[in-house]
Amino acid sequence: MKPALLKELQYITGKEYLFTDIEDRMTYSYDAAVLDPKIPCAVVMPGTDEELGKIVLLCNENNIPITVRGSGTNLSGGTIPEEKGIVLLTRRLNNIIEINEQDMYAVVQPGVVTAALAKAVEKIGLFYPPDPGSQAVSTLGGNVAENAGGLRGLKYGVTKDYIMGINFFDATGEYIKSGSKTVKCATGYNIAGLMAGSEGTLGIISEITLKLIPCPTCRTSMVAAYNSIEKASETVAAIIAGRIVPATLEILDNFTIRAVEDYSRAGLPVDAAALLLIEVDGHPAVVEEEGARVVTLCETMGASNIKVAANDQERDRIWSARRSALSALAKLKPTLVLEDATVPRSRIPDMVKALQQIAKDFQISIGTFGHAGDGNLHPTILTDKRDKKEWHRVELAIEQIFDKALEMGGTLSGEHGIGIAKVPFLKKETGFSSIEFSKRLRRALDPNGILNPGKITGV
Amino acid sequence: MKPALLKELQYITGKEYLFTDIEDRMTYSYDAAVLDPKIPCAVVMPGTDEELGKIVLLCNENNIPITVRGSGTNLSGGTIPEEKGIVLLTRRLNNIIEINEQDMYAVVQPGVVTAALAKAVEKIGLFYPPDPGSQAVSTLGGNVAENAGGLRGLKYGVTKDYIMGINFFDATGEYIKSGSKTVKCATGYNIAGLMAGSEGTLGIISEITLKLIPCPTCRTSMVAAYNSIEKASETVAAIIAGRIVPATLEILDNFTIRAVEDYSRAGLPVDAAALLLIEVDGHPAVVEEEGARVVTLCETMGASNIKVAANDQERDRIWSARRSALSALAKLKPTLVLEDATVPRSRIPDMVKALQQIAKDFQISIGTFGHAGDGNLHPTILTDKRDKKEWHRVELAIEQIFDKALEMGGTLSGEHGIGIAKVPFLKKETGFSSIEFSKRLRRALDPNGILNPGKITGV
Repeated sequence: MKPALLKELQYITGKEYLFTDIEDRMTYSYDAAVLDPKIPCAVVMPGTDEELGKIVLLCNENNIPITVRGSGTNLSGGTIPEEKGIVLLTRRLNNIIEINEQDMYAVVQPGVVTAALAKAVEKIGLFYPPDPGSQAVSTLGGNVAENAGGLRGLKYGVTKDYIMGINFFDATGEYIKSGSKTVKCATGYNIAGLMAGSEGTLGIISEITLKLIPCPTCRTSMVAAYNSIEKASETVAAIIAGRIVPATLEILDNFTIRAVEDYSRAGLPVDAAALLLIEVDGHPAVVEEEGARVVTLCETMGASNIKVAANDQERDRIWSARRSALSALAKLKPTLVLEDATVPRSRIPDMVKALQQIAKDFQISIGTFGHAGDGNLHPTILTDKRDKKEWHRVELAIEQIFDKALEMGGTLSGEHGIGIAKVPFLKKETGFSSIEFSKRLRRALDPNGILNPGKITGV
Repeated sequence: MKPALLKELQYITGKEYLFTDIEDRMTYSYDAAVLDPKIPCAVVMPGTDEELGKIVLLCNENNIPITVRGSGTNLSGGTIPEEKGIVLLTRRLNNIIEINEQDMYAVVQPGVVTAALAKAVEKIGLFYPPDPGSQAVSTLGGNVAENAGGLRGLKYGVTKDYIMGINFFDATGEYIKSGSKTVKCATGYNIAGLMAGSEGTLGIISEITLKLIPCPTCRTSMVAAYNSIEKASETVAAIIAGRIVPATLEILDNFTIRAVEDYSRAGLPVDAAALLLIEVDGHPAVVEEEGARVVTLCETMGASNIKVAANDQERDRIWSARRSALSALAKLKPTLVLEDATVPRSRIPDMVKALQQIAKDFQISIGTFGHAGDGNLHPTILTDKRDKKEWHRVELAIEQIFDKALEMGGTLSGEHGIGIAKVPFLKKETGFSSIEFSKRLRRALDPNGILNPGKITGV
């Protein structure tokens, strides 16, 4: 990048918020996906909307690619920058602008941490349900850009279901308003909806209006242990068929149980072939009734042991154990590939079987856990990328996982997005026409191709 | 239109499904909005996806505008065609392709009537909540294209909240797949979300996948009468503030009450200044508790009379009375303008006052009813368009209603869309930049401008 441009960037944000040292640039050259890093020219950290707008304008005029980054928890390479480009950090844009209790919405800047908003609204009895695994550090801007899911997707939906409005700078630096603070809005194109999951390729988010709902007044959690993973996955299908919609319905296989127990000493039964972690919430009468029905269903479907959390402490222990699954698995091998191919929920038993077969066929370790209740498993491949032969088998296995999910009427990505990692596979699901349609849309909105190039459509 | 083109259209659909007589063309020259009719060149009624695709291709090659029409209940002129164009009726594309009980979704063609799907899924204990006023005749394709709302928006959201996937022909005749049959999908751009509310300007819908949910097991309805509309509207705010989310929370002013009673003899108290029609649903314990709390709140806020429906028959009478409001008002004067400017729900009392003031200031009749619980009132102006002086005052009043809604942080349209009617006002809400952004998006996806020209962005 030309020194004159760096000077202009510095002029916009001030010297202390422009980083050009190699150490800083390396820090922002990768994310949580298993992909090669790319070192950007500069890293910039604007503190106001005005600065944000000026940076976009400058980059567009000079064809400088911009990759926006919240906390870099992306699992598909969506925050890996271009070498000719800059990384734009949203860390300083972290104000909760408004929490409107009466009308039940919040207005936030993109750098607000997910859990910080959840906590702030909980204090006044409101609820922001989307809870991606990384919620303790992930940002709401990142959640919107990736349409992040989470454990509660089953009952409460994903990030896009809570987006009421988004204001953003388009590629040319124009400020675009979309959506509204009203429950209903049929005014113009659903641009806020289009921004959800657009991975930073259609605009640079400045402000998000999110829907809040009343907090459920009661919740109960339980752990059901099984001596076969098939029985556990069939229980998932049975619960859904019984028209019970738990707040969360998670599965852990034996591999994951042992890793988690090693890591967190939560008291999980390490001999179980699989665990279901279930929470139902709502009105106390609903919780009591549905909780009892879930216990009965687990028993009927062959659970060897069912433990209902006796208090909040026990409940927290269950969920923090679940949330540590990824970290626990990551300790075991140098490389961890976390997939999120998703199937219609009734196909969970078939998908579990398919994953076991794939692990066997390709002689690799797959730990399986995830959001069984919404068909969104996280098969996690443990490997060492430096072992070229094994890595080749891993790549074949990943493609096989995608193929199986699509065969079952599923999708490549339930919540991690396409990013760079899944670009080669997108056509398998959508066909070429949908990709061409997306490219036309993208080119029209970002004529110079400066917004996070290479993601989703590959250009 | 050239005879050769008509011949080609006829070749695609067969003679019996191409209409060129003036009577037929006039029939499809207008919709439910108060706008001048435009007589199309031809009306065509394809019976298969293949025919649909061929028509789009033919029209694109020959620059023939296409306006898709379900049942023509559009209230913003979205189904008024171009004089150089054709009307494409979806009536024959009316198959419910799949209802998947286990995975709780339905796949439908665009011409399926809303109430027909609701009924079909209710039979197996499932629920498709969006219930626009016109549900008995409106089509799901139209609901998607307009992002239709309804009485249950408050608790259950609107059409876009139930769209899992949409397959459609783009303007060039390519078949585009978007979304998935899985609960979560982060695969590619949220094109299905973009199609919601796009008013037929981005593609011609061929197949829609809709989310279903379990039926609530219990419901109770009540009518609260007030001797002042202010008290009624303050009750709405109080219910929401009490963290109760009724399934429906409707208001009728005295003008509407009298019109409805004249029309339907439902036994409404014609002396009441306003009525609230409320339904809570869910688990029996929730319904009992919330029902009782609503009654108490209504009393506290000054209701003069509260009547809880004793049985299904009484419940049905309440809601069919509410659903007849538009027809009842339409009988009173030659011209009826139904608006849907929407405010954050806590501002309902202010909006009700503003509407009264506007009626007084412009010496016109405004009947107010609508979805008070989600801030989406339907101020209904009764007039005679032939009375030029009054019509001028009506036009000024409409603009004033929009201005007031926007002042209160609201939106021009809660559920009827922009169509042609609100094009001149769109910039007031979104500013020019958002409209320019929308135009670029649209031009890229429909380079020849054949898809429902003139709607939303005005070109």
